[in-house]
Amino acid sequence: KTKTTQISDQTNGMASPQVRSPELRKDSVTKRWVIFSPARAKRPSDFKSKSPTTQSQQQQECPFCLGHEHECAPEIFRVPPSSGLPWKIRVIENLYSALSRTLDDPFAQNHNPNSSGSVGQVLGGFGFHDVVIETPVHSVQLSDLSPQEVGEVLLAYKKRIQQLATHDAIKYVQVFKNYGASAGASMSHSHSQILALPVVPPTVSTRLDSAKEFFHETGKCSLCEVRVEDLLIDESSHFISIAPFAASFPFEIWIIPRHHSSHFHELDGAKAVDLGSLLKLMLRKVSFQLNNPPFNFMIHTSPLQVPNSQLPHIHWFLQIVPQLTGIGGFELGTGCYINPVFPEDAAKVLREVHIP
Amino acid sequence: KTKTTQISDQTNGMASPQVRSPELRKDSVTKRWVIFSPARAKRPSDFKSKSPTTQSQQQQECPFCLGHEHECAPEIFRVPPSSGLPWKIRVIENLYSALSRTLDDPFAQNHNPNSSGSVGQVLGGFGFHDVVIETPVHSVQLSDLSPQEVGEVLLAYKKRIQQLATHDAIKYVQVFKNYGASAGASMSHSHSQILALPVVPPTVSTRLDSAKEFFHETGKCSLCEVRVEDLLIDESSHFISIAPFAASFPFEIWIIPRHHSSHFHELDGAKAVDLGSLLKLMLRKVSFQLNNPPFNFMIHTSPLQVPNSQLPHIHWFLQIVPQLTGIGGFELGTGCYINPVFPEDAAKVLREVHIP
Ligand SMILES: Nc1ncnc2c1ncn2[C@@H]1O[C@H](COP(=O)(O)OP(=O)(O)O[C@H]2O[C@H](CO)[C@@H](O)[C@H](O)[C@H]2O)[C@@H](O)[C@H]1O
Ligand SMILES: Nc1ncnc2c1ncn2[C@@H]1O[C@H](COP(=O)(O)OP(=O)(O)O[C@H]2O[C@H](CO)[C@@H](O)[C@H](O)[C@H]2O)[C@@H](O)[C@H]1O
Repeated sequence: KTKTTQISDQTNGMASPQVRSPELRKDSVTKRWVIFSPARAKRPSDFKSKSPTTQSQQQQECPFCLGHEHECAPEIFRVPPSSGLPWKIRVIENLYSALSRTLDDPFAQNHNPNSSGSVGQVLGGFGFHDVVIETPVHSVQLSDLSPQEVGEVLLAYKKRIQQLATHDAIKYVQVFKNYGASAGASMSHSHSQILALPVVPPTVSTRLDSAKEFFHETGKCSLCEVRVEDLLIDESSHFISIAPFAASFPFEIWIIPRHHSSHFHELDGAKAVDLGSLLKLMLRKVSFQLNNPPFNFMIHTSPLQVPNSQLPHIHWFLQIVPQLTGIGGFELGTGCYINPVFPEDAAKVLREVHIP
Repeated sequence: KTKTTQISDQTNGMASPQVRSPELRKDSVTKRWVIFSPARAKRPSDFKSKSPTTQSQQQQECPFCLGHEHECAPEIFRVPPSSGLPWKIRVIENLYSALSRTLDDPFAQNHNPNSSGSVGQVLGGFGFHDVVIETPVHSVQLSDLSPQEVGEVLLAYKKRIQQLATHDAIKYVQVFKNYGASAGASMSHSHSQILALPVVPPTVSTRLDSAKEFFHETGKCSLCEVRVEDLLIDESSHFISIAPFAASFPFEIWIIPRHHSSHFHELDGAKAVDLGSLLKLMLRKVSFQLNNPPFNFMIHTSPLQVPNSQLPHIHWFLQIVPQLTGIGGFELGTGCYINPVFPEDAAKVLREVHIP
């Protein structure tokens, strides 16, 4: 980032003429206003710029590495399941679990945890918090794996969600990945997390409500209808990847199944490899174009305990968010985001980037 | 933060016995579930820890300094207003404005910007984005000012909000401050920002809805009724400061007017000094106890263009959020937060900390 002294010649006008005017957009999925403001991209900073890449200690081994299994919380399952072979993927309990799998079901009979007072509600912290170790090798990243191997990671998510769905008290499962310290990661060894919640979280309720509203008005599912055109980045047999119309973050990507599907865990083996290949491609494009930025991905699925037949309006997708800008008091206060990059521009860049 | 190898003796059990069980809480103001999970505070990291304090370049002067006014976007007003004296506070246009004050009112007659398609809605980016320079001196921070001077900054917010409220198209004004690079700040010179929006943002709508619901059920305003007890941190003649019951962030603080008031800009001179003194105290406690962390504060007020008589249920407050933990894919995906510190513990610490 350049220093502030260079911009004093711009102080007489507002944005320079070649900069597009700001625009507010709200998409029919998130129902959240986003401010698109290319002028914001030019602002200077007098703080030392953060290094774009993730600096991890030159550590070669950690508890997630092959041979360190005893340093981890208990294993739930591994891939391949046979214990004779070295593992490729391990699904384990999170040692510092945000929720407790040993507490009582907070909604169970003769248990009265849902104390609701004037001040608010309290619920026992029942739930599951697992870690998916995506590779036994410390230096390998998810995008280094083959499409088949990425597909196996996705199928490990699926298997674990199916197990969690057998608990009536679990209402929603959030699968997510943090890559790089500024995306929240505390461990550098390639992994993702699965958190199973006794409540349907707020963004999911909002998404369900707006999907229902859209379905009510149009008779269609909003993600089946998603207009691609200039927002399309890539496609595979079963999936498309787009820059969402009202992206909250610059270079945000959504990977969406072409055909209606409410729950991520409907994914079959062939689709998992196909998704693995598109996900790998998107991660490599982001890494190459944006200089290996920290990122998060999140799988947005439907609540559990609801049959697919009741969900014609709701369509799962995977959201990738490179962490390029950070947020401040405006976003914390309002829940609105300021995005300096129009999604059609991000889509063009990501469509055209040539990975060597 | 310690390395992961030290915790291998804990792998057989879950959280150690002295750690309190996790709990979910939702308060009647934000209506958002928060996971309280003290066990999370103990997790290790193999990334280099970020320095807790804000490292700015050893710069002594910047465009916000006395004598550099020509490097800034146009001034709106200054305090004191007389141009003969040196200024104490300047309210200026943001040079990299997120919204444009020169665009048409997006809701004006014979203007059809609110194009609503299957994909979503678009609105011209009309609005105001200002910067409040809180002091002419580069090295002075807000909490270094006297209570009277902090009060003058608050009255500058008030005056600017009153000006912005004269625009019918402005529906909400967000006042916020970013301190430190990891709280989003790009300028280290002490300042805050004021963003005036043509829409009511999502967190405000949610807050209004839950306040209405509470009022409907109880006949009372939820913040007039806020139970303090173990959540109280400090108080002044006209304000109390508390750790909110379902704080999203560790050591989050709310400063609330004792008597019902819907709009921040009802603040008078005496209350401004009183609030200035409590705000200064809270910022000094946070800085002293938590080692000068980055932080944000946000003023949560009511929408404009609505008379106070229609707002018996909604009560403004100021929220302070020290940035201690960062967020990850779980929070981005669900809108739920994981807070390792119970608010009653944070309140106790902040109540008892002795500032030298
Ligand atoms: N030996 C061991 N055995 C089993 N598990 C182990 C372990 N050692 C560490 N772990 C767990 O491994 C996980 C690694 O996760 P990440 O690096 O993705 O981020 P983390 O969850 O720490 O926090 C980020 O993600 C969360 C959720 O989004 C945010 O709340 C937070 O602010 C952000 O930093 C941690 O949850 C940790 O508890
Ligand atoms: N010469 C000049 N004259 C007038 N104004 C000048 C100027 N030079 C710089 N500015 C403005 O001064 C402001 C300083 O603001 P902050 O340091 O609080 O954070 P910033 O708005 O950059 O971004 C943080 O806050 C926003 C809003 O929360 C987040 O979107 C973002 O991610 C986060 O980094 C900037 O908005 C900048 O445009």
